[in-house]
Amino acid sequence: MFKYRLLTPGPTPVPEEILLELARPVPHHRTPEARQVLAEVTEGLRYVFQTKHDVIPLTCSGTGAMEAALVHAAPRGAKALCLVAGKFGERWHHIWRTFGVESVAVTVPPGQVVTPAMLEAALRQHPDTQAVCAVHCETSTGVKHDLQALGELVARTNAVFVVDAVSSAGAMELRMDDWQIDFLATGSQKALMLPPGLAFVAVSEKGWQMAQRHQPPTFYFDLKKARQKIREHDTPFTPAHTLLRALCKSLARIRSEGIEAIWSRHARLAYACRAGFRALGLEIFASVPAEGLTAVRVPAQLDGQELLRHVEKHYGVKLAGGQDQLKGKIFRVAHMGYMDFFDILAAIAAVELALRDFGLAITLGAGLAAAQRAYAEFSHP
Amino acid sequence: MFKYRLLTPGPTPVPEEILLELARPVPHHRTPEARQVLAEVTEGLRYVFQTKHDVIPLTCSGTGAMEAALVHAAPRGAKALCLVAGKFGERWHHIWRTFGVESVAVTVPPGQVVTPAMLEAALRQHPDTQAVCAVHCETSTGVKHDLQALGELVARTNAVFVVDAVSSAGAMELRMDDWQIDFLATGSQKALMLPPGLAFVAVSEKGWQMAQRHQPPTFYFDLKKARQKIREHDTPFTPAHTLLRALCKSLARIRSEGIEAIWSRHARLAYACRAGFRALGLEIFASVPAEGLTAVRVPAQLDGQELLRHVEKHYGVKLAGGQDQLKGKIFRVAHMGYMDFFDILAAIAAVELALRDFGLAITLGAGLAAAQRAYAEFSHP
Repeated sequence: MFKYRLLTPGPTPVPEEILLELARPVPHHRTPEARQVLAEVTEGLRYVFQTKHDVIPLTCSGTGAMEAALVHAAPRGAKALCLVAGKFGERWHHIWRTFGVESVAVTVPPGQVVTPAMLEAALRQHPDTQAVCAVHCETSTGVKHDLQALGELVARTNAVFVVDAVSSAGAMELRMDDWQIDFLATGSQKALMLPPGLAFVAVSEKGWQMAQRHQPPTFYFDLKKARQKIREHDTPFTPAHTLLRALCKSLARIRSEGIEAIWSRHARLAYACRAGFRALGLEIFASVPAEGLTAVRVPAQLDGQELLRHVEKHYGVKLAGGQDQLKGKIFRVAHMGYMDFFDILAAIAAVELALRDFGLAITLGAGLAAAQRAYAEFSHP
Repeated sequence: MFKYRLLTPGPTPVPEEILLELARPVPHHRTPEARQVLAEVTEGLRYVFQTKHDVIPLTCSGTGAMEAALVHAAPRGAKALCLVAGKFGERWHHIWRTFGVESVAVTVPPGQVVTPAMLEAALRQHPDTQAVCAVHCETSTGVKHDLQALGELVARTNAVFVVDAVSSAGAMELRMDDWQIDFLATGSQKALMLPPGLAFVAVSEKGWQMAQRHQPPTFYFDLKKARQKIREHDTPFTPAHTLLRALCKSLARIRSEGIEAIWSRHARLAYACRAGFRALGLEIFASVPAEGLTAVRVPAQLDGQELLRHVEKHYGVKLAGGQDQLKGKIFRVAHMGYMDFFDILAAIAAVELALRDFGLAITLGAGLAAAQRAYAEFSHP
């Protein structure tokens, strides 16, 4: 018997106390208690986003929240830059094109990041850019973008800076206001330790000014209306209010651990995880790895999909594979949200055993020992 | 001590076994088990909708599903008719206008229904109508529209028939295919006995043909892409999959009771509920009342909001008030989803006691006795 361990970069494990919260009877959604929940949620999310702006809850998945941000960030006919380092950057590029925005993709090969120098060059080439979109943690490849440096470049222009923090908010250092982010979106099912169903968007003053200049083509994702409502601790439509109530619990956990301590925990897990897999002779896929997940290249002689099926079937550990052109070529281990170091050890142990099962020459325990040493030695910069 | 009884027309009570389902650990969303859940969900919803077409789950509230339906049903510049008998009809009218559809409202005063004759006249006056939108059960006033007759009229034209069944699907007789409905939308938090967070849309052949003729201005609510995915038992984006898993349980309940038996139960509860309030000298607000809820006019000498606060505070019964211009003028008692006759008796009893508390000359028990007799005498047509 092996326990089932979910180590995918969303959905992620939900703490037991929060699962029980989800089993509580359903209340009405227009009551003083419901308003109190919305007040706590927006206050808690401000802390997670490190912003003084309103954080607006939406009932949808992360893609819905990004669509909401994008349609407010640039009107039809505008020019936008989309920094594409993988599947999610590509998705936002498609959304903009769907809405008639001329989105110029600045694309790097999978595993690489779009550097500030690349953005600088693109802004020089496209001085009429009205919006720039970046993915903080590109979940499909495990890379992290330097939002602070990118934000500085965008802030010098009239363009707004739109950031997908779906798999980073609550896991990786993220400072909306200090880093000059104008639209910031995340989802519930990653480091916020909830099931999927909710997503959140915050908008800066510069962002609201951009949104006021045009009529975004949406009703359900109308952020101007939603902002009015959230200021009265209300929502325009029936929200997924049992998830909101549960979110209060997870935000209380986050506040009690402390957001900087949480960032540090994730950085430490990531550091140990990378050390473990490297010690097995495996290659970390991301040139600049994120703290929320680790993508590892599958040894050339193996089929990654078969490897993951084996790891799940025999050892109960659920990892994520590569998507699209990366299918079978990488596997991804999440360390975001409700996860600790021993969960990461289980993942490394499962992969060690599986690699041996597939006949690779593996020194059993080498990955574990390296992770253990890295964990102990870690000191946050 | 009085138990808390939620008798609002959404959110509605969730059966205890389904609440417990929501507390189960979170699985991954791209697995054979998750595909099995989606297969069961679409099959079960076909039964609820009485359709052979695909039923597409969306992670959003009912308004999101209606937006999805409306943007596929008519392109920018088209003319549509919107049958408006209250707040929800009005909302769909606004959505269409947001998307540049020339929506002509056929409006009746609150409590009235739009009749087939009115639609016939409107279609004659606007022969270039490309879509007609109706609300099955107008939750804000408690009226029911005759979808069968309306559908027949629309079917004679080239227009598509778009129906909001948010508070009717799973409560009131509804036959998508027989009634020639082209777009049908509902939400999870009404008669489907779940918390809010999911919504569903089904589309007829005529509907898909209309959708194919233009490029709907949406990415998140792209039903064409969602249909491709659902046919592989998949979704384009991370769905609220723990709600989907719970939905399997509620669909199993529905199938085991039988959809016609469920319609009959709701009709019987509605019949008894109306008899009870009438026996107290109160007036039923809807000219053609729905089976999912009963709207009752508040006696002129009382403030409806105060009455409902009293009923909740002293007797634990949560009813809904009137919205917008009906605030304080009506109250609404839901009998949809996980509710039985004795819940309705509790609502009547609470209102009886409250009316007496406010000094009205009430024969205590008169409402209860009338409801009891009506319940016993009810025979479904």
